Amino acid sequence: MPGPGYHNPRKNRVRQRPDARPSHGLRQRLYDLLFTIETPAGYRFDVILIVVIALSVLTTMLESVAELRAQWGAVFAALEWGFTIVFSLEYLLRLVATNRRLRFAGSFFGVIDLLAVLPTWLGLLFAGLPSLIFLRTLRVLRVFRLLKLWKYSREAQYLLAALRASLPKISVFLFGVGTLIVVLGSVMYLVEGPENGFTNIFVSLYWTVVTITTVGYGDISPQTPLGQFISSVVMIMGYAIIAVPTGIVSAEIIRGEPDETPEEPCP
Amino acid sequence: MPGPGYHNPRKNRVRQRPDARPSHGLRQRLYDLLFTIETPAGYRFDVILIVVIALSVLTTMLESVAELRAQWGAVFAALEWGFTIVFSLEYLLRLVATNRRLRFAGSFFGVIDLLAVLPTWLGLLFAGLPSLIFLRTLRVLRVFRLLKLWKYSREAQYLLAALRASLPKISVFLFGVGTLIVVLGSVMYLVEGPENGFTNIFVSLYWTVVTITTVGYGDISPQTPLGQFISSVVMIMGYAIIAVPTGIVSAEIIRGEPDETPEEPCP
Amino acid sequence: MPGPGYHNPRKNRVRQRPDARPSHGLRQRLYDLLFTIETPAGYRFDVILIVVIALSVLTTMLESVAELRAQWGAVFAALEWGFTIVFSLEYLLRLVATNRRLRFAGSFFGVIDLLAVLPTWLGLLFAGLPSLIFLRTLRVLRVFRLLKLWKYSREAQYLLAALRASLPKISVFLFGVGTLIVVLGSVMYLVEGPENGFTNIFVSLYWTVVTITTVGYGDISPQTPLGQFISSVVMIMGYAIIAVPTGIVSAEIIRGEPDETPEEPCP
Amino acid sequence: MPGPGYHNPRKNRVRQRPDARPSHGLRQRLYDLLFTIETPAGYRFDVILIVVIALSVLTTMLESVAELRAQWGAVFAALEWGFTIVFSLEYLLRLVATNRRLRFAGSFFGVIDLLAVLPTWLGLLFAGLPSLIFLRTLRVLRVFRLLKLWKYSREAQYLLAALRASLPKISVFLFGVGTLIVVLGSVMYLVEGPENGFTNIFVSLYWTVVTITTVGYGDISPQTPLGQFISSVVMIMGYAIIAVPTGIVSAEIIRGEPDETPEEPCP
Repeated sequence: MPGPGYHNPRKNRVRQRPDARPSHGLRQRLYDLLFTIETPAGYRFDVILIVVIALSVLTTMLESVAELRAQWGAVFAALEWGFTIVFSLEYLLRLVATNRRLRFAGSFFGVIDLLAVLPTWLGLLFAGLPSLIFLRTLRVLRVFRLLKLWKYSREAQYLLAALRASLPKISVFLFGVGTLIVVLGSVMYLVEGPENGFTNIFVSLYWTVVTITTVGYGDISPQTPLGQFISSVVMIMGYAIIAVPTGIVSAEIIRGEPDETPEEPCP
Repeated sequence: MPGPGYHNPRKNRVRQRPDARPSHGLRQRLYDLLFTIETPAGYRFDVILIVVIALSVLTTMLESVAELRAQWGAVFAALEWGFTIVFSLEYLLRLVATNRRLRFAGSFFGVIDLLAVLPTWLGLLFAGLPSLIFLRTLRVLRVFRLLKLWKYSREAQYLLAALRASLPKISVFLFGVGTLIVVLGSVMYLVEGPENGFTNIFVSLYWTVVTITTVGYGDISPQTPLGQFISSVVMIMGYAIIAVPTGIVSAEIIRGEPDETPEEPCP
Repeated sequence: MPGPGYHNPRKNRVRQRPDARPSHGLRQRLYDLLFTIETPAGYRFDVILIVVIALSVLTTMLESVAELRAQWGAVFAALEWGFTIVFSLEYLLRLVATNRRLRFAGSFFGVIDLLAVLPTWLGLLFAGLPSLIFLRTLRVLRVFRLLKLWKYSREAQYLLAALRASLPKISVFLFGVGTLIVVLGSVMYLVEGPENGFTNIFVSLYWTVVTITTVGYGDISPQTPLGQFISSVVMIMGYAIIAVPTGIVSAEIIRGEPDETPEEPCP
Repeated sequence: MPGPGYHNPRKNRVRQRPDARPSHGLRQRLYDLLFTIETPAGYRFDVILIVVIALSVLTTMLESVAELRAQWGAVFAALEWGFTIVFSLEYLLRLVATNRRLRFAGSFFGVIDLLAVLPTWLGLLFAGLPSLIFLRTLRVLRVFRLLKLWKYSREAQYLLAALRASLPKISVFLFGVGTLIVVLGSVMYLVEGPENGFTNIFVSLYWTVVTITTVGYGDISPQTPLGQFISSVVMIMGYAIIAVPTGIVSAEIIRGEPDETPEEPCP
C-alpha cells in the first residue's frame, strides 16, 4: 500500500477543468481532439503531434551543424516554415477550442507553444535579426509534451510518486549542500585566488559544484598544496554526501513498491 | 520467494530448440559437442573455445600497439591465420551439425561468428584494404560467448533477474532523462554558442550527457557566467537524478533476495 | 520506531544553558531576542539577521568580481562598513545579554561572529593590508546560522538522525578508504614519478583522491601503460567502494523512517 | 539475525595458530608482546608500533617533496636509518619469538616487514642504486597493520561482513562490466583510431574504464561525431550500471543490520 504522501494516478487524468470544454458542437469535438487523449481521434492526434515535434526538433538540431546549414540551407528554411505554419495553426485552433483562452495562453504549454512559433514570424518582420533566429531552438521545449505519455505508464506513476515523496527531504538536503558549497567556494577563493583560475567567488562556487558532484571538468583545478588538500577533503565529503539522496530515493521506492504478494493476516 | 516478474533460471538452459538437434548419429554427437554444455565433452569444448577466443582477443589487442606490430608483425599474421582457420572450421561444423542452418546463421552468435572470420578472408581477396583489417577487431564480440558461463552462476541469475525486473522503471527513467538532456543541451547551445566550443546542438547534447552523468571530461566546458550557472544547476540535478536508478535497482535486489531464513507462519 | 542511536529532536531545542539567561529586566528580554527563537520577536530577529547575512555574503561575492569592483568600488566599501557596524553592534549586544560571556566568545558562532567583523576594523588600523581584506570573506561562515532553521524542519531532523546514526560506520569506511589512498598514492608515485606530473607523494595522494572519488580533473593523469592499468583497477575499486556509504545511509534512512502505517500486532 | 553468509567476528580474534606460540619462558612473553593484543603490554606495543609506522610513512612522504629533500636531506637520511634499524630489530625479534618461522616469513605481513627494511640495507651494499631507494616507499604497505585495529570495531565487523557477503555478486558484476569494457573499448578504437588519441586497444580500454566509472579525466576524449554518440550511450549505461553494486551492498547492509528491536513471536 503506498504511503500517505503518495499521489493517486487517476486524479490528474483530466488536466483541463471541465468548464474549459465547450458544451456542444464543432468546438467541443475540436476540444476533445486537441486537449484530451480519451477519444481515439484525440489519441491519434497526440501521437502525430509528438512525431511532428520530434521531427522539428531534429531539423533544428541538424540545422545547427554549420556544414549541413551551408549545403542544405534552403531545405531547412522550407521545413522551418512548414513547421511554423503547422504549429501556428495548432496554436490558433487550441485558442478557438477552449472556453478558457487566457488560462491556456498563460499556462506552461500555452507559453511554450507561442514561443515555438513567434521567433520565425518576428524574423519576417525584422529581417536578419540573428539572436531571434536562435530563439527558435526554444521549440525543443515542446518536447515536454512527450511527458504527457507518462500518464499512461504505471511504472512512471510509481517513479513520480517516489520522487514527489522524496521532494521535501531532497530539498532540505540541497539546502544543506548549498550552504556547504557557499562556504567551501569562498574558502577556496581565499586559498587559491584569481592567479590560479579562481577569478571571483562565483567562479569558485562553480568549481565547488563541479567538484562536489564529482563532475570534475578540470578547466579550473587547485594549484597550491593547501588548495589540493582542501579539495581532497571536499571530494571525500562529496563522496559521503552523494549517499544521502540515493538513500532517500531508495527508501521511498522500497516503501512505495506495490506489494504484489500481500501477506496473510494472522488468523 | 522471488516476485512475479522474476524469471526462472532453469527455463533458458537449452538455447537451441529441440528440433535443431539431429535425431541420431555423428551429427547428433557433433551438435551436443558444439551447442550444448550438458555433456562432459560439450562442457570441455566450451571451456577450450573460450580460452582460444580470449587468446585471439589478446592477440588483436597486442597487435594494435604500433611498437609491437613493427617488431612481431609476422608472428601476429601467423597467429591471425591460425585463429581464422580454427574459427572458420568451427563455424562450418556448427552449420553442419544443426538442423536449422538459417536460424543459426541469422542468430546473434551466428552473425558474430561469421563477422569474426570474414575480414581476414576478404583481406586475402582485396589485398591492402586497410578498413577491412580493422574490422577484424570485431572478433572481440565473440567474448560475449563468455556470458554463457553466467548460466552456471546462481549469483548471476539473481542479478539478471533484478536487472530484468528493473528494466521497465529504468526505461521510463532513461526516457525522462533523455527529454531533459535534449532541453538542457539546446538551452546551453543558445547560451554558450559555437564560439565557446558548443559548435552545434549535437555537440551540446554530448556535453550535457558528459555533465549529467558526472563524467566531466573538460574537453568542452562552459565559459560564460550564465553557462556556468546553468551547468551548476544541471550538475546538482544530475546528483539527485543518479539516485533514481540506484534506488530502483536496490529495491529490486532487496525484493529479489532469496529469504534464507524463512519466517515461521503463525500457528 | 527509530532505533536506539536516534536522537530526540526536542532535546536540543534550547541551545544555551538556562544559567546563561539573565533572570529579569532588559537584559533578559535582550537575551530572548538575540539567543532564542521561542518568542515572536526572537523569531523575527533571526529571520531579519539571516536576510542581512545573506545580503552581506552576496555583496562580498559581487565585490570579488574584478569588473564590478572597478566600477562600484565606493558602493561596496559603503555597504561593507554598513554590514560591519551592524554585525559589530549585534556582537556587542550578544556579549551584554548573556551571563556566560566567555562561553559565548569561545563558542563556534561567537568566534565566527568576531571573525566576521574583525578584518574590516583591523584594515582601518593597518591600511592597505591586502591579506586582511580577503579574510573578510570568512563572513560567509555566518551563513551557517541558516542551519538554525533546520531545527524547525521535521524532514531535516530525520536526515540528521540518519546521518548521525551512519557516522560510526562512515568513519570506519573513511578510515579504510584513507589507508587504501595512502597505499595506492605511494604505488602510483613509484610507477609514474615526477616526470609524469606525480611530483611528490602528496600530489600523488591528491591524484588518488581525485580518481577514487570519480571526480577526475585530468590536471594529472597517468602516462605510462602500467600507470594506466593500475588507475583502471583503482577506478573500478572506487566504483565498488562508492556503494558502501550509499548502502550505509540507505539502510539508516529505511530504518529511521517513521512507520506511518503501524502493523497490527497478532491478537 | 545476520544471514548464513555472515562471518562470526569472534572467530579470527587469534590470528596465529596456538602451536606458533612457545609453551613457556622469555620467548612466550616476547610472542605475546609482538603477536597478540590480548595482554596490556601487547596492546601498548601495537599502538606504539602503529605510531612509529605512521611517522615513517610521513617521513617518506615529506622526503618525496624535492624542496624539502634539498634542504633537510641529512635529517631524512638519519630518520630513515633510525626507522630501518627499529623495524629490522622488530622483524628479527618476531622471527625469534614464533615457533613457525617459515610460516611467518612467508605470510603477508612477514613479506611486507622484510620489504620495508631490505631496500635501505641493499642501498648500503650497492651504493647509488636509485631504483632500490624508491622501493623504500613500499614501507607504506605496513600501514595495513593499522587494519588490525578494525578487529576492535563492531562497526567494522558489520561492514566487512556485508562486503564479504556481497563479494560473489560484486565479482559476477565486475566480470560482466569487464566483458562490456573489452567490447566497447575495441569498438571505440575502431571508431576513433590512433589519430584521435586512441593509440591502441589498451589505451582504448583505459579510456572506457575512465568513462564508464564516470571519472572522465579528459586526457583522451572522442573527437568524431560517431565516437561522441557511442560515448554518450556508454556514459548513460555507466549511469545505470553504477546502480548495481550500490544495490547489492545496500541490500546486504540492510540484511546484515543487527535487529535491535527483536519482534515478539506470535503467542
